[in-house]
Amino acid sequence: MKTSKKFLLQECDIPTQWYNILADMPNQPAPLLNPGTREPLKPEEMEGLFAKALVEQEFSTERFIDIPDEVRQLYKAYRPTPLVRAYALEKALGTPSKIFFKNESVSPVGSHKMNTAIAQAYYNAEQGIKLLTTETGAGQWGSAMSAACRHFGLELMVFMVKNSYNAKPYRKHVIHTYGGKVAASPSNLTDYGKKLLAEDPENQGSLGIAISEAVEMAVKSGNARYTLGSVLNHVLLHQTIIGLEAEKQMEMAGEYPDKVIACFGGGSNFGGVSFPFLRRVLNGERKLTAIAAEPAACPKLTTGKLEYDFGDTAGMTPLIPMYTLGHDFQPEQIHAAGLRYHGGGRIVSQLKKDGFIESCAIDQDETFRAGILFARTEGIIPAPESTHAIAATIREALKAKESGKGEVLLFNLSGHGFLDMGAYEKYV
Amino acid sequence: MKTSKKFLLQECDIPTQWYNILADMPNQPAPLLNPGTREPLKPEEMEGLFAKALVEQEFSTERFIDIPDEVRQLYKAYRPTPLVRAYALEKALGTPSKIFFKNESVSPVGSHKMNTAIAQAYYNAEQGIKLLTTETGAGQWGSAMSAACRHFGLELMVFMVKNSYNAKPYRKHVIHTYGGKVAASPSNLTDYGKKLLAEDPENQGSLGIAISEAVEMAVKSGNARYTLGSVLNHVLLHQTIIGLEAEKQMEMAGEYPDKVIACFGGGSNFGGVSFPFLRRVLNGERKLTAIAAEPAACPKLTTGKLEYDFGDTAGMTPLIPMYTLGHDFQPEQIHAAGLRYHGGGRIVSQLKKDGFIESCAIDQDETFRAGILFARTEGIIPAPESTHAIAATIREALKAKESGKGEVLLFNLSGHGFLDMGAYEKYV
Repeated sequence: MKTSKKFLLQECDIPTQWYNILADMPNQPAPLLNPGTREPLKPEEMEGLFAKALVEQEFSTERFIDIPDEVRQLYKAYRPTPLVRAYALEKALGTPSKIFFKNESVSPVGSHKMNTAIAQAYYNAEQGIKLLTTETGAGQWGSAMSAACRHFGLELMVFMVKNSYNAKPYRKHVIHTYGGKVAASPSNLTDYGKKLLAEDPENQGSLGIAISEAVEMAVKSGNARYTLGSVLNHVLLHQTIIGLEAEKQMEMAGEYPDKVIACFGGGSNFGGVSFPFLRRVLNGERKLTAIAAEPAACPKLTTGKLEYDFGDTAGMTPLIPMYTLGHDFQPEQIHAAGLRYHGGGRIVSQLKKDGFIESCAIDQDETFRAGILFARTEGIIPAPESTHAIAATIREALKAKESGKGEVLLFNLSGHGFLDMGAYEKYV
Repeated sequence: MKTSKKFLLQECDIPTQWYNILADMPNQPAPLLNPGTREPLKPEEMEGLFAKALVEQEFSTERFIDIPDEVRQLYKAYRPTPLVRAYALEKALGTPSKIFFKNESVSPVGSHKMNTAIAQAYYNAEQGIKLLTTETGAGQWGSAMSAACRHFGLELMVFMVKNSYNAKPYRKHVIHTYGGKVAASPSNLTDYGKKLLAEDPENQGSLGIAISEAVEMAVKSGNARYTLGSVLNHVLLHQTIIGLEAEKQMEMAGEYPDKVIACFGGGSNFGGVSFPFLRRVLNGERKLTAIAAEPAACPKLTTGKLEYDFGDTAGMTPLIPMYTLGHDFQPEQIHAAGLRYHGGGRIVSQLKKDGFIESCAIDQDETFRAGILFARTEGIIPAPESTHAIAATIREALKAKESGKGEVLLFNLSGHGFLDMGAYEKYV
């Protein structure tokens, strides 16, 4: 019997720098624009919304950016995460391909979101900020920020998409247990929320609306800043710790991926796992395909348009040049709430335009079938978001079976599904 | 900042043998009795209920028992588990004591139960058994058996205490996702269940009742066996993998525990972490105190009597010499459903009688306060069961603070609490 095999690094192998793919891109993405003047946004214009160090990272084109020692120490609570050769899944599929996954579900909050939550809380605390605001869809990001804020003594206000708030009560309990506050969005805590509730008291919310509320509260509160769990350059930067570790682990395994696959919401776990590998492509050292697995209900990279759009629904954020379904797009209520975002962010969108990234759109039934097969072979119940990466990997593995030509596939298991068991029950 | 520090072993460090404490006990426990004849039970009388290899282990007095290679391979999916120095918790308590915990929550099902589930499924599959039955209280054991049975191609029927079945729906979804079947106990699937439901359709069940149903179904079904998640010698044997790893890791840390602490339901995680350390005590090499942390609602070691009692409510199992609250004792509905068992098992009870084990009883409020403090310092939300070990550890750490004499404390974090967030919400 060939059971799954882990490739493990030591704590001393945790990278000391994050990787900034902007340094290697042949074409830089168009700039963010000030929503009022439509002029390129200056760093100082973002500093009322984000910690100064994070704004610097957002605009940086340095190839490698040092991870502060305190952040790296906290990473040691769960990093390095395992890379796993999924022999049992391979066998169940009868594929000649070799399947590897990076297991980010082992973080204390159950997802990769911890990687940037720690960094964002750290920089805000360093600057003396007292209150952070944020949004959350599935609740993974809110949970991670709540744990991180507790560590640094920061207050946290999470606007949670109302549909998730009601459908996933355990997630808000997790946020509370770590000490964060959480409100169903749209809420009565902001002018924008009040306006929406006045129009429709049953408004179920969206990530875009929750962002608008969190931004409004950060701007109107004293000594507060907003934090975002995906989309922006600095968030993807922090997540490259995933791919940097995975590179070393693939080397341990004696393999290099032909395809790197991740689910795609705002791009943070996708960019995190794929950018260090794409660096070799941009440098001409290697060939590989990076595949973003989107939900059919919200396929911005697959069917969206590349244009300037707002990051939120109310139009309060800078304008972002990205593949988008429109900032007022309301995706249907799929279980993978973390993927219900309308836009693809600057870097990923430019890479997609330039042909370095592919995408596919997968419907919910297929993703849950993939998640159940993964649970029954590899033993881990994946988050609904992560099942998209698994489903896309299975598609590739079955293609290889047909062609008889095996490939090396690497996907990112962004989180576990323990808090989404209600969704699974409907599919078993 | 001193963040928590992990002590990590390599896969090659996973023990190759389990430790059987019976080999080192000065007084052997009294034998199991046949419930009909009241004569000492013979191994062959147990073989209709349990796989032959497990019965052999139940009666074995060999000091070390080889772990089958296939079981050890499967352990590699999550083992070795980390040992963690809990600096953040120490700091929050202001204690001079050093606190370590063994983190068994990292298994794919979220608890230590996987350690024996894999072994039990393996031996049953080796014997050609097709159907396994079992009971579950909190659902941790049922989840672990469901994952293990899926791996070995075994069918599984889980009788889940009705109160937990309704209060913790996500746990049954987990069992389903891995492919196991689950019924609320008492159920209409057994004569005993039918009898209880006829007497009281609202019967909320207990571990003892669920065991009776699982035993009845195993005995009446063809090619089926029963499996138990705790209490019996062979179950505690498998769990010693926890303490054997922890011994090596404490050596890496350059420390030896003065006190080893675990929550106590049927004794499996307690025996698992403490027996390898108690071996040194029984041999006269070391001194240390092993503390069983019981719920005040079900304190069999603390206030029970040492006498022969049944393992189940209906009186179908062999008679076990153990500290017990009586096999018809109905503990109140605490959240730590995995600790709602009436008896302490043979080995632990004998060790308690001989003065090698201490116990304490802790009420639910204190355990949840401990759990929330742990989540907010160490970042991991513990299972309600595990919060008992944390609360007992905090008591010891605060005693040391008063006396000014620091100790080395080691506790077992038996599982995470992601599926018990409803319970936390009431305490935050």
